[in-house]
Amino acid sequence: MTSREDGRAVDELRPVTITRNWLDHAEGSVLVEFGRTRVLCAASVTVGVPRWRRDTGLGWVTAEYAMLPRATHTRSDRESVKGRIGGRTHEISRLVGRSLRAVIDYKALGENTIVIDCDVLQADGGTRTAAITGAYVALADAVSYLRERGALVSEPLTGSVCAVSVGIIDGTPMLDLPYTEDVRAETDMNVVMTGTGAFVEVQGTAEGAPFDRAELDALLALAEKGCADLTAIQAAALDGGAA
Amino acid sequence: MTSREDGRAVDELRPVTITRNWLDHAEGSVLVEFGRTRVLCAASVTVGVPRWRRDTGLGWVTAEYAMLPRATHTRSDRESVKGRIGGRTHEISRLVGRSLRAVIDYKALGENTIVIDCDVLQADGGTRTAAITGAYVALADAVSYLRERGALVSEPLTGSVCAVSVGIIDGTPMLDLPYTEDVRAETDMNVVMTGTGAFVEVQGTAEGAPFDRAELDALLALAEKGCADLTAIQAAALDGGAA
Amino acid sequence: MTSREDGRAVDELRPVTITRNWLDHAEGSVLVEFGRTRVLCAASVTVGVPRWRRDTGLGWVTAEYAMLPRATHTRSDRESVKGRIGGRTHEISRLVGRSLRAVIDYKALGENTIVIDCDVLQADGGTRTAAITGAYVALADAVSYLRERGALVSEPLTGSVCAVSVGIIDGTPMLDLPYTEDVRAETDMNVVMTGTGAFVEVQGTAEGAPFDRAELDALLALAEKGCADLTAIQAAALDGGAA
Amino acid sequence: MTSREDGRAVDELRPVTITRNWLDHAEGSVLVEFGRTRVLCAASVTVGVPRWRRDTGLGWVTAEYAMLPRATHTRSDRESVKGRIGGRTHEISRLVGRSLRAVIDYKALGENTIVIDCDVLQADGGTRTAAITGAYVALADAVSYLRERGALVSEPLTGSVCAVSVGIIDGTPMLDLPYTEDVRAETDMNVVMTGTGAFVEVQGTAEGAPFDRAELDALLALAEKGCADLTAIQAAALDGGAA
Amino acid sequence: MTSREDGRAVDELRPVTITRNWLDHAEGSVLVEFGRTRVLCAASVTVGVPRWRRDTGLGWVTAEYAMLPRATHTRSDRESVKGRIGGRTHEISRLVGRSLRAVIDYKALGENTIVIDCDVLQADGGTRTAAITGAYVALADAVSYLRERGALVSEPLTGSVCAVSVGIIDGTPMLDLPYTEDVRAETDMNVVMTGTGAFVEVQGTAEGAPFDRAELDALLALAEKGCADLTAIQAAALDGGAA
Amino acid sequence: MTSREDGRAVDELRPVTITRNWLDHAEGSVLVEFGRTRVLCAASVTVGVPRWRRDTGLGWVTAEYAMLPRATHTRSDRESVKGRIGGRTHEISRLVGRSLRAVIDYKALGENTIVIDCDVLQADGGTRTAAITGAYVALADAVSYLRERGALVSEPLTGSVCAVSVGIIDGTPMLDLPYTEDVRAETDMNVVMTGTGAFVEVQGTAEGAPFDRAELDALLALAEKGCADLTAIQAAALDGGAA
Repeated sequence: MTSREDGRAVDELRPVTITRNWLDHAEGSVLVEFGRTRVLCAASVTVGVPRWRRDTGLGWVTAEYAMLPRATHTRSDRESVKGRIGGRTHEISRLVGRSLRAVIDYKALGENTIVIDCDVLQADGGTRTAAITGAYVALADAVSYLRERGALVSEPLTGSVCAVSVGIIDGTPMLDLPYTEDVRAETDMNVVMTGTGAFVEVQGTAEGAPFDRAELDALLALAEKGCADLTAIQAAALDGGAA
Repeated sequence: MTSREDGRAVDELRPVTITRNWLDHAEGSVLVEFGRTRVLCAASVTVGVPRWRRDTGLGWVTAEYAMLPRATHTRSDRESVKGRIGGRTHEISRLVGRSLRAVIDYKALGENTIVIDCDVLQADGGTRTAAITGAYVALADAVSYLRERGALVSEPLTGSVCAVSVGIIDGTPMLDLPYTEDVRAETDMNVVMTGTGAFVEVQGTAEGAPFDRAELDALLALAEKGCADLTAIQAAALDGGAA
Repeated sequence: MTSREDGRAVDELRPVTITRNWLDHAEGSVLVEFGRTRVLCAASVTVGVPRWRRDTGLGWVTAEYAMLPRATHTRSDRESVKGRIGGRTHEISRLVGRSLRAVIDYKALGENTIVIDCDVLQADGGTRTAAITGAYVALADAVSYLRERGALVSEPLTGSVCAVSVGIIDGTPMLDLPYTEDVRAETDMNVVMTGTGAFVEVQGTAEGAPFDRAELDALLALAEKGCADLTAIQAAALDGGAA
Repeated sequence: MTSREDGRAVDELRPVTITRNWLDHAEGSVLVEFGRTRVLCAASVTVGVPRWRRDTGLGWVTAEYAMLPRATHTRSDRESVKGRIGGRTHEISRLVGRSLRAVIDYKALGENTIVIDCDVLQADGGTRTAAITGAYVALADAVSYLRERGALVSEPLTGSVCAVSVGIIDGTPMLDLPYTEDVRAETDMNVVMTGTGAFVEVQGTAEGAPFDRAELDALLALAEKGCADLTAIQAAALDGGAA
Repeated sequence: MTSREDGRAVDELRPVTITRNWLDHAEGSVLVEFGRTRVLCAASVTVGVPRWRRDTGLGWVTAEYAMLPRATHTRSDRESVKGRIGGRTHEISRLVGRSLRAVIDYKALGENTIVIDCDVLQADGGTRTAAITGAYVALADAVSYLRERGALVSEPLTGSVCAVSVGIIDGTPMLDLPYTEDVRAETDMNVVMTGTGAFVEVQGTAEGAPFDRAELDALLALAEKGCADLTAIQAAALDGGAA
Repeated sequence: MTSREDGRAVDELRPVTITRNWLDHAEGSVLVEFGRTRVLCAASVTVGVPRWRRDTGLGWVTAEYAMLPRATHTRSDRESVKGRIGGRTHEISRLVGRSLRAVIDYKALGENTIVIDCDVLQADGGTRTAAITGAYVALADAVSYLRERGALVSEPLTGSVCAVSVGIIDGTPMLDLPYTEDVRAETDMNVVMTGTGAFVEVQGTAEGAPFDRAELDALLALAEKGCADLTAIQAAALDGGAA
């Protein structure tokens, strides 16, 4: 096995921590850590749905992703100051939202809206996968909040969802890349899966040379292993007691 | 085999047309049609590179994707009028750019910039894949333009690139989805490949139920078939004579 | 007579082509060409009118004009990327809209809205006059669409409208200037007229020396001639059969 | 002769007042009044020219037009608050700039820039024509400022420029329309002329029925009369002593 | 006593002029001058309140502050052109609004809205304090306008409000600083007071060295003196007859 | 003494915690807590200064303040999504920057820039005062970072700075208001002071009835007490060892 800077096996996750109820006001809130990557996920519940969805009896779940200016090694300008949201931010916000909606039954949710804000406090690779993994737990707590208030039609969560990055570095497929590995990866893939091992999103990109089918298969196998581990960590966090 | 509305086999592309030199001013220009989807790809060459890349000896290739307001069944507001670019537009522009850069040797290009504008004149599903497929041909013509003027360091094109959509409709994997199939697809995947059959991008999304590994494999096989066909069509278009 | 680069007489239009039904989705669509200037005009019909006009029984017609980034000799940045619409775009959009409204009876149109998008695919002078001339035909087709569906109160078109540019080059008044003449013109005028030869808009600008009354009269006479020709071309295009 | 609300003859200007040096800081400043229309024109001189014009030896003159929110009968939202400039503002700013540049010899001005800000303090019709008329006087004072400091190559003013509105109300052509006449006008024309009676801009618009050639001629004659009067008023103001 | 450039005593205001009814359309309008600082305050009355305040029976008062581009010694770019409002403008608009609301009884005003636009025509220090002082008089005239039309529930003005700047220059506390003093001030304070001598806002800033309690006390005493004088000037202006 | 909801004495701060080095990348970083208010302050050091300050030999310090969308009881829209920064955000960013600059000697700092980002993770009143108090500690750590690298001209910190809110609730002046007290306060004041007890900023606002001089004096006394306590807490945090 190729040695990694932090001593991990190629199919090993970084230490993952999920701290629930990190905020006092939000209906669900999680500080999720994948190694040094630290994302604050806050779920906000509101009665009612956006205008275009009214009177359908269906709920809505959406997400917004952003980074604090000094989450990264060097400071980035704020998107609020620039007056526009960048393409990367847009793209990840949409990905997180789609991932969460994959495990939601809108009818069961009723005409309620849950917005999940994922703010990266510190970035060290894998911010979008940490965001999805943490956001699911915050979402589950927000659903519990609605359940306790009798505001649900029935159970809206059809399963759990988590995500992990995989990539090929110096020809070796590896799981859960920190920043130093990410910048060296020839191929980079983010995989979103349900707790039962089905795929929600597969996004693979050749950063250097294009990849062949065998490499793709190896990456998918690593991602399946990583997501299984993350599913267990999410379940343990949620077992830790009421929100 | 499942019958499709337009009578195609499940692994058959829509009629694909690539018309080179559709514009008089651009250094490369292509009107590409995938069935009723019609995208105008214009390549603009400028000497020099963006500020952040100066004095590196490296060239730059980028792309912008947009839709005319009435490309779609009902009119959409212009992004220029709204004053901001939507997430989808950002996402596709980035995808087209990355795809083209996968077959470019920056050193060989020298400090030249090629911008490819992909404007959807009419949309009927697969606009991003048509855009990538046409943009490659416009890029090749822009490279020829530079070559004829002796402005290249060496040959910058390391291969060809094309893209196709695949999806699962009523449980059946199908190639190259028009709008009516796209909206019904449970899973939707866009695959970008080189002319030699390697993967540049794989973007699969579960629109309905999550997909399993067998479905993913079936979709990848269809995409490989479609991209092989598109590669041949691109080659034929470029064989058709000087730009 | 002064010779022109393209051999035309000073009172001769460039070859004008009007291709109806260029798009499949729009209720009216025209690709209009004035020489190498090529504008796509798409008419979109919606039931109802903007909020400020509701419950008046009156319809509404408006237009938006824009240029693709590589319509011109060198690429221009997209207004959507810049986040704001330039003064020239605003000005021409307003001109096209006013011109079309000059031949519309709002009461007869009923509470329907027609938006005409004029997108310049290639620019070689006279884009605004080509846009108006083509937009009228697209508008007429959109009105036919409404008529066929019994959605009109009575006949909303009170006449036809077209436009042409005129200018003084090296002291000689000339009709329908391509780009190379336009940049050399001392005086530049755009004239919008009805099919019956009345004026809707007259916009003359001294680019170099101010012009006197005799020059103004000569330009108006040329414009009257050009608009009469364009009216005939529009009529022929519309006679070509149902949309 | 048709009687007008304010008792004027149809070819008579409203009382016009030009107050020079209304501001203490600006190199030229004029409060111009056309009846109740009141526009503050401030000319700002800077050494040097915009980047795109550097090292050409040529100067630059430009203008910006805007309205205070309560210049009008009912309050309008600020364009700064809306975050974008409207089409009308853009259009008039461009018109004022072009009009002033028609009497400027850039070479004689040298690499100096003069910006004329025209801010409408109160609007009662004819704000753009008042702006041009006043802006010329502020420009002349700014040129004097440069002349006194020996900063000119030679005399940059090639003449004077002024503007007036004309229109047809109930079939009668009239000069210099206040708001109440302007809203009733079937045809509305703004004419910019030099002090020697040549045309710089002619912008005529049919607000109701299109207009014929005879009406156009009548309007042009009125405008020639009005501009001759305004030229005299400008000259008198400038004769009133040093800025 | 330290001598000041303009010969004033340290506790003496600049000449203050309040000209009511400077505009014809606005329900209240004041041109206020503090020396060479000149601010146009226009009060606009509308029936009804913003959406968030509807059906509360309460009125609303708000203000917007802005500067003309050449109000200052050198020209500033327009915020409308930049597409965003600067922090300073935001801050002062909020301050003016809060100050006026301090003397308004919303219930007595009924569901009416008064917007006060304060546009600085010329700036020479103290623009925000002049704006508040003038805005109160415009507000009082707008309230009279409503009173005369029987549109008030009862008397909404609970008192008068005015403002003045104070600062420490070369160790000496001084009242009402013009620009040349303002830029040299070690400490700069704006004080808003009611006509009865109570404080509405105190905003003190150490521009150079921090200030101690004794200096703060001296500044507050000067401000109390200045506001008493301004209150008398406001009263005299309002006594001058009906708006 | 009036009892407070949380049992504190009227002149008692909430529990204040300052956690240094909360982030791994930033040159100085502090998580500061005033009760449940939690602000992350990150100091970013860059060599060089903004363009307008180059070649002066002087450094620069600035700050940006923002709130996460769910810092508050109900979710607020992101300013990046709205495309503009609100007045309150602008105002507080400016206040934090001015406060920090009050204790900086630019010459000693040399041509280095320090940006302090203050992001409110959770808001419960006093976010701006917590931000200033924490930002000073992050600034001190960033200065140490420069000192250790020999990048300073001499010692740039001329003292320490902190801030606290005071207000009058039910007639009683109180120190350090949480949200529930803040909304009920008749008068609200934020006071920024140096470690030696001098004033940097005093911003007092009458939210209800105007306040008299005696009340102002009482508030200032409370603020002096609170800032003395905060200065001790800052010193203890910084004594806790190297950053």
